[in-house]
Amino acid sequence: MTKEENEKGENEALEKAFEESEVPSWQNQLTIRSMVTSLILSFVFNVIVCKLNLSTGVIPSLNVAAGLLGFAMVKAWTVMIEKCGLLKQPFTRQENTVIQTCVVASSGIAFSSGTASYLLGMSPRTSAQADTGNTPLNVKQLSIGWMMAFLFTVSFVGLFSIVPLRKVMILRYKLTYPSGTATAYLINSFHTPKGAKLAKKQVWVLFKSFVGSFFWACFQWFFSAADGCGFSSFPTFGLAAFTKRFYFDFSATYVGVGMICPYMVNVSLLMGAIFSWGILWPAIESKKGDWYSAKLPASSLHGIQGYRQKSEKKSLNDSTDGQIVDYDEKRRTEYFLKDQIPNTVAVGGYVLLAAISIGVIPQIFHQLKWYMVLVAYIIAPVLAFCNAYGCGLTDWSLASNYGKLAILVFSSWVGLENGGVLAGLASCGVMMSIVSTASDLMQDFKTGYLTLSSPRSMFFSQVYGTAIGCVLSPLVFWFFYKAYSVGDPEGSYPAPYALMYRGIALLGVEGFSSLPKNCVKLVILFFVAAILINVVTEVLKNYETKYRIYRFIPSPMCMAIPFYLGGYFAIDMCVGSLILFIWERSNKKKATEFGPAVASGLICGDSLWGIPAAILALAGVQSPICMKFLSAAANQQVDAYLGP
Amino acid sequence: MTKEENEKGENEALEKAFEESEVPSWQNQLTIRSMVTSLILSFVFNVIVCKLNLSTGVIPSLNVAAGLLGFAMVKAWTVMIEKCGLLKQPFTRQENTVIQTCVVASSGIAFSSGTASYLLGMSPRTSAQADTGNTPLNVKQLSIGWMMAFLFTVSFVGLFSIVPLRKVMILRYKLTYPSGTATAYLINSFHTPKGAKLAKKQVWVLFKSFVGSFFWACFQWFFSAADGCGFSSFPTFGLAAFTKRFYFDFSATYVGVGMICPYMVNVSLLMGAIFSWGILWPAIESKKGDWYSAKLPASSLHGIQGYRQKSEKKSLNDSTDGQIVDYDEKRRTEYFLKDQIPNTVAVGGYVLLAAISIGVIPQIFHQLKWYMVLVAYIIAPVLAFCNAYGCGLTDWSLASNYGKLAILVFSSWVGLENGGVLAGLASCGVMMSIVSTASDLMQDFKTGYLTLSSPRSMFFSQVYGTAIGCVLSPLVFWFFYKAYSVGDPEGSYPAPYALMYRGIALLGVEGFSSLPKNCVKLVILFFVAAILINVVTEVLKNYETKYRIYRFIPSPMCMAIPFYLGGYFAIDMCVGSLILFIWERSNKKKATEFGPAVASGLICGDSLWGIPAAILALAGVQSPICMKFLSAAANQQVDAYLGP
Repeated sequence: MTKEENEKGENEALEKAFEESEVPSWQNQLTIRSMVTSLILSFVFNVIVCKLNLSTGVIPSLNVAAGLLGFAMVKAWTVMIEKCGLLKQPFTRQENTVIQTCVVASSGIAFSSGTASYLLGMSPRTSAQADTGNTPLNVKQLSIGWMMAFLFTVSFVGLFSIVPLRKVMILRYKLTYPSGTATAYLINSFHTPKGAKLAKKQVWVLFKSFVGSFFWACFQWFFSAADGCGFSSFPTFGLAAFTKRFYFDFSATYVGVGMICPYMVNVSLLMGAIFSWGILWPAIESKKGDWYSAKLPASSLHGIQGYRQKSEKKSLNDSTDGQIVDYDEKRRTEYFLKDQIPNTVAVGGYVLLAAISIGVIPQIFHQLKWYMVLVAYIIAPVLAFCNAYGCGLTDWSLASNYGKLAILVFSSWVGLENGGVLAGLASCGVMMSIVSTASDLMQDFKTGYLTLSSPRSMFFSQVYGTAIGCVLSPLVFWFFYKAYSVGDPEGSYPAPYALMYRGIALLGVEGFSSLPKNCVKLVILFFVAAILINVVTEVLKNYETKYRIYRFIPSPMCMAIPFYLGGYFAIDMCVGSLILFIWERSNKKKATEFGPAVASGLICGDSLWGIPAAILALAGVQSPICMKFLSAAANQQVDAYLGP
Repeated sequence: MTKEENEKGENEALEKAFEESEVPSWQNQLTIRSMVTSLILSFVFNVIVCKLNLSTGVIPSLNVAAGLLGFAMVKAWTVMIEKCGLLKQPFTRQENTVIQTCVVASSGIAFSSGTASYLLGMSPRTSAQADTGNTPLNVKQLSIGWMMAFLFTVSFVGLFSIVPLRKVMILRYKLTYPSGTATAYLINSFHTPKGAKLAKKQVWVLFKSFVGSFFWACFQWFFSAADGCGFSSFPTFGLAAFTKRFYFDFSATYVGVGMICPYMVNVSLLMGAIFSWGILWPAIESKKGDWYSAKLPASSLHGIQGYRQKSEKKSLNDSTDGQIVDYDEKRRTEYFLKDQIPNTVAVGGYVLLAAISIGVIPQIFHQLKWYMVLVAYIIAPVLAFCNAYGCGLTDWSLASNYGKLAILVFSSWVGLENGGVLAGLASCGVMMSIVSTASDLMQDFKTGYLTLSSPRSMFFSQVYGTAIGCVLSPLVFWFFYKAYSVGDPEGSYPAPYALMYRGIALLGVEGFSSLPKNCVKLVILFFVAAILINVVTEVLKNYETKYRIYRFIPSPMCMAIPFYLGGYFAIDMCVGSLILFIWERSNKKKATEFGPAVASGLICGDSLWGIPAAILALAGVQSPICMKFLSAAANQQVDAYLGP
């Protein structure tokens, strides 16, 4: 619980510094200047995300850049206006948060719209590249009209699903949402009033760690000329451990996230990584040829990947510290609860929009029946909850994994001959919008909570951003689609994920029987085990108050995440924990006061480098050096090959 | 001058802690147990050094290991004896220093005896591998008899040459001798009496940085499977800068050395590196084909290497702060001056031993005339002074470079037909013993100074160690020479330097005319420039006391060292400076109290890893991973070659 104490210490000091600053009403947080800024940034970020989506498929986290650029633009504007003596309303951190939220919402659509994954996977261009499934029912010509309609139908539903979650996640479970927290610290630091001594010191510490982290990311870039190069492929614990995804990848982001997350989260992640990659996968792999065909490539879902894919589903019913809101957090809670969005509105909105969706989507995709969409909208909030919860604990959003799961389920349900491939891909869109919105925007709610922004202004900003995204994202994509041979593996926009998503759908239409032996059994086993662990934790929490043993029971949710991803980020996060632990031992007060600032700086600096890196990638600038890791034997070969 | 203040602060605290501990008389510092321990360690280290000499040619620094193992052995012995109630004299830090000195002296002989360089270069085995010079007059059959005689003749002279230097270097110039200082901190930390609070804290800091540095070196080892692999080949500033030897090589030793050396030394080194590798060499290389033949390999002394080789000679007359001994250092100076070795003894000893040498050496090597040996003994003390001075400033001993210089001069003097190759190699022995002894043992005198050891006991220990070395070194070598095909390039003991030294002699016999165009001119130019800079510094020091501008004039001696080696270690040392600078700015008191402890820990931990690394190398254990740095283009080739 040291972490929570930390945050309290920091928060107290921080909010004291802001005591004099007036918090504008929620209507005044939605200024015209913030709307305009949001629109401009949304456009820029949509272009960047779309282009990256279509070229490398790797999208940087944009929260920090959105917050920073939003600040810079509005600040420049207000300073200019002020010099002319025309400034009526000062620039507040709430306004800044609103901009950031809007930009994240709109560029979130650029990702969840699947223009580089599920939507493109429907196109004839992509289907021509696959061996099977190239039937009229399983292919759909892309057109800007139905794409925009589809996005407008599915994207807003997600917003309503997260509104009730908001209070559970942030007030009840007090989840950390590391990125959101870091962004909040950054925004707070921009707006810290003069005279606040500790706060100023914290800003300075944050700035230093921000700059350090930015340049560290920049330095790393120079050594990552190709895949498998650079610090992110550093076999810190040897090559054998590296193949099992155990390595420290020198990511400042996850070290920072580790510093913000409670110790138990990091330990659970590490335990999950050790259990899955150290014990379970090797055990399953020893069954190769028995449980599944030995001839399959390692990444085939028919093989070991099939077990990994499933294990995500477990621990739906996880829950932790449902404590009463702490007195110290009164001010934040007060503002967070001030402008209510009644649950009736949220549920009503969700039902209404889902109903519209259920009507509209089968019109666009005849292959998907109305009752299937209904089922999707019944399952979706549960998965959204899971994803938002996991993201709150560990900063990982597994939205695309849930999307892939939807593809498997629905394409299997419909079957190949009835257009199951297309149905699966469309359902992926339905699912991903909700699940990805839930985690992305919950991060923003955490930011809003920590900057005393009104949930209502944030909700409107999210709606506004989503609308922008639904218009911009297909437009920008359409520009690329018409101008370049998008999806051509040899071209400059290979859109690598389109074929991959279609491949999953093709796998799905073969039905669940295609999953390897014992796969479903294992899923059920782990599902039950996760529930049991949580029951035990809850029981201990309520009846064993002396030693509070429940604190030492790992979280199954956290343990599940490395099953798919591997242990590398868990190791990063444990490094963060270790740093904080040592710091706390040597100087508890300093660690408490400055720990979150350092962590936020690490996260924000690393994230911000994502923008120049993306621009470099788009400009076709390759990094000059490859830091490669070869076994001694391979190195001899290479040396002989390269010559003296 | 911040550095000096540092040291004072630290020293005061340290010597206060030792105030109660009695310093034994110099006779009592030379105990039987220390003699026995020295003998055992000398044997072990001689075997290690000899084997490394013959295999890889890379010798780790042994000061720290000698100090540490000496401590462990005697401590184990005294604790045992004490339990039996038989302990008469407690184990003191002076005794520890005496052991360390003896072991360094004896293993120094293993290096300077040239069994893997100049002596082996005389043998028929090596001469058969060279194209020319394989005449009877230029080859000498190795035999244990004359080798031992030669070593006894030349090795003790050096001891007397350094005795008068001792006071100049340590008391007058207050040179840092980073390795010696670090070893002293380590030894002091072993013997810190209980109850000394600050000292205990310093020991703890030293221990932490020691362990950190040791494991960092160990970690680095795993990634250095071959040449050009690992952190020591990290092109920190890009591949282009790397070819100009500008990179940070992650060496904890030189970061530590940088923390101990004054800022101006590090800045001078960096300036020298930039001037030579950034400006001068590229300028000379642009004269390729005009000043020297374009066809020569890059490492040929006929080419650009010829200019580098010479530039070492400059700035013989350098001198810095000749201040009066500081009052604070009274206690150390008192003990350092307590047991005098009169200069008359030193000079007399030198003259006597040199005279014996002049008589004996021409008996062993007929090719070397008595007047040549005389000239060598006249030049040697000057070069010894230079080397000891440079080593005191920067921790670099350039003994082997001075040895190579001697080969060039004397083989050129004698000429091929008169056996110039052999004469050159023999003169290398004469020169190297003196020059290398001067820097190695001056480090020990610095250690002795900082541990209040008597110079007289240290001198005896050095004599004892030298004698051990003169006996052991040829014996151990003889064992290898008879048992294995030493010098066979394909064998396990290729002794890479033997042929290289012979090659230099073969170059020398061609005479000075073989040096590239303008080489001698440049040497004279830089020589004059260095003297001028020093004159200006001295003048400013005496007549301009207001701003003390002289503090900002770089030291030509320091600038010269990177001419040959490149800038990488200068960058390490500047990183050390930077760390200390930032530390001082954030907490002056802590930096002053703990800076030297951290630096000593860094140096000692890194050095100590040299021992396990050497053992691993001798056992034929190769590191498993190569961290390689390839240009993006080369990486594509390699990826294509290695396949998916």
